[in-house]
Parts: sequence; C-alpha cells; structure tokens
Amino acid sequence: MNYCSHCATPVERIIPPDDDRPRYVCPSCNRIHYQNPRLVVGCIPTWQDQILLCLRDIEPRRGKWTLPAGYLENGEGVAEGAHRETREETGARIEALRPYLLFDIMHINQIYLMFRSKLADLSFHPTRESADVRLFTAENIPWGDIAFPVIEKTLRCFLADRERRAFPFQIHPIHTRLQRG
Amino acid sequence: MNYCSHCATPVERIIPPDDDRPRYVCPSCNRIHYQNPRLVVGCIPTWQDQILLCLRDIEPRRGKWTLPAGYLENGEGVAEGAHRETREETGARIEALRPYLLFDIMHINQIYLMFRSKLADLSFHPTRESADVRLFTAENIPWGDIAFPVIEKTLRCFLADRERRAFPFQIHPIHTRLQRG
Repeated sequence: MNYCSHCATPVERIIPPDDDRPRYVCPSCNRIHYQNPRLVVGCIPTWQDQILLCLRDIEPRRGKWTLPAGYLENGEGVAEGAHRETREETGARIEALRPYLLFDIMHINQIYLMFRSKLADLSFHPTRESADVRLFTAENIPWGDIAFPVIEKTLRCFLADRERRAFPFQIHPIHTRLQRG
Repeated sequence: MNYCSHCATPVERIIPPDDDRPRYVCPSCNRIHYQNPRLVVGCIPTWQDQILLCLRDIEPRRGKWTLPAGYLENGEGVAEGAHRETREETGARIEALRPYLLFDIMHINQIYLMFRSKLADLSFHPTRESADVRLFTAENIPWGDIAFPVIEKTLRCFLADRERRAFPFQIHPIHTRLQRG
C-alpha cells in the first residue's frame, strides 16, 4: 500500500494513538487502512467412501489436485461460500454441510474454514478452473500431487477421523510446509 | 475506495475478465482491489456459573455491555486473537478455549468466531476500552443493555446449551436486529 485509497495522498506506516502496532495511515484525511486476514471457505465433497478432488487449471499450483475452496465474498455466508466455490470449481452440488476444520495460516494471513459435505448427485465436471474433477478412494489419493499443505492436512484429518467415526470441530495451525512421512 | 492504493490512479468499478461480480480495478496498473469480510474473534469468559461482561467505554455503543471480541490481526491465530482481545478489554487471562459459535453477519461483512473459555483467575479490571468489567449470573444479565445483537445471541445460545449440557459448534446468521421476546 503506497497511497490512501480515499484521497490518493501517500500513506505513512505509523502506530496510531491508542493502538499497539503499525498501520497504514493517511496524513491528509487521517484514515487508518487496516489490513486483516482473509477467510477461505471450502469443503470435502464425498460420495459413499470417495472424495472429490479437482485438478487446478489456474495458477498457483496448476496441475496439482485440490479440494474446492476460495475467498469468502462480501455479503456471503460461510456455507453459501463453500457451495459457490464447489459449484465454480467442480460443477457439483453439495448438501449436508457440517463445519469441520479451521486452519490458521498465519504466514499468509489466511484462515481456512473447511466443511464436510455430500455430493447431491454425480453431475460434477471439468470447469474453467479445473482441468479434471474426479472421485478418489483413500487408497488412490495422489498424495505427491496435492496443491497446498492445508489441503493435504484436511484430507489426512478427514481420513483419520473417518476411521474413528468422529468428526469433532478442530482448529489447527498450518506452517510453511507440512512435514512429510 | 476512490484511488488505487498502489499507484494513486482513480479506480473503476467493473467486472474483471473471468469474474462474476464488480471489483475496484486500477486502469493503470491493472490491480484488482478485492474486498472481503473481516473476521472478529472473541469469547465467553466464565467463572463457575458466572459470565464476564465489559461495559464499553468506546464508540460504537459506549455504555452498553458486551463480551470481549475484536478484529483478528494479520499474523495472528484465531485463539491467540481471542486471548488478546480479552486481555485488552477486560485485563483477564483465559484458558480452556473451545471454538463454539460462528456468526455470518452479512449486512456488515463480518464473521464472528466466539470461543467458550474459563477465567484463569479473578484479575480482571476496567481498561482503556471498558469502564467496568463484571461477572454476571444468568439471572442478572442486563439484557436491555447488551451492545450488539451478535452478543445477545451468543449469550442466549450459551445459556440454552448450558441447560442441556452440550455445546456443539454452530453457525448462525445475524440479521440487522434480533427479534425481542
């Protein structure tokens, strides 16, 4: 951020009165331009014992597999956002959404909220964002080609919880890279 | 938003290619300035059967009672944010945080995440933001003087769930005003 988005004056990086951390502040109109984490909403769409993954056809991580997820939009509820992202990335309709995992991804200022869900039918298909959309059993998940650490962690949590038949709502941190093995 | 925060050119409000909704776009440097909901984190601090509330000494809603809550900061985890807001607004230290309620407040583009928690001790006190900080039993909660609908809803959910001794993680919408009675 270089300029005030309200009045175009160059902003300063200072600690405002009654605050305890640096903010972008406009010396002309005095607006404080707060910057906060963004919320990503997504889901684990399942069909019987299979999980729906999509092959990214956009950067970053084009050619890697992921779960449907994306930024929550203004004016949108979190479950509504998960429905929308799933439709946009896989063409699928989902139902029976259950909030399941929340991830603090502090180094990139993102919070992920992932739902469990069921596919309403098998009408998924490739989309503008996904070159392929496919169901995987636990044995066939392409672990070496998962797009993001948060998606790998989501899948591992889900499979472990499915073994023990309990899906408590959980919060996990995600650091730069998951440890393998 | 009037100007590009990167290059100070007046922004345009257009639907970018491959998008489906209007964004602020810079016609000079082509940056898209996305606007997304902000996440508020807070908690219900309890001591035995009592709940800690704070009397707001800042606008909006100065002179009304609330639970500790505030915007999540960049680089901060959600539980860490709830600890910080509680310390800043009540001076209290909390422990045993459990994620409990998530609220979609779509008309103001906010998502609230509220934790249950226990006071670590009775060292709470008035702060710069709170003219008074006090424990309330269920019978004494000042229902007519609660600062925000989301806080009233949080308290009502908590008391109802405490009656049935189960606190499942829940997502609720908050509309402009709660219905009374």
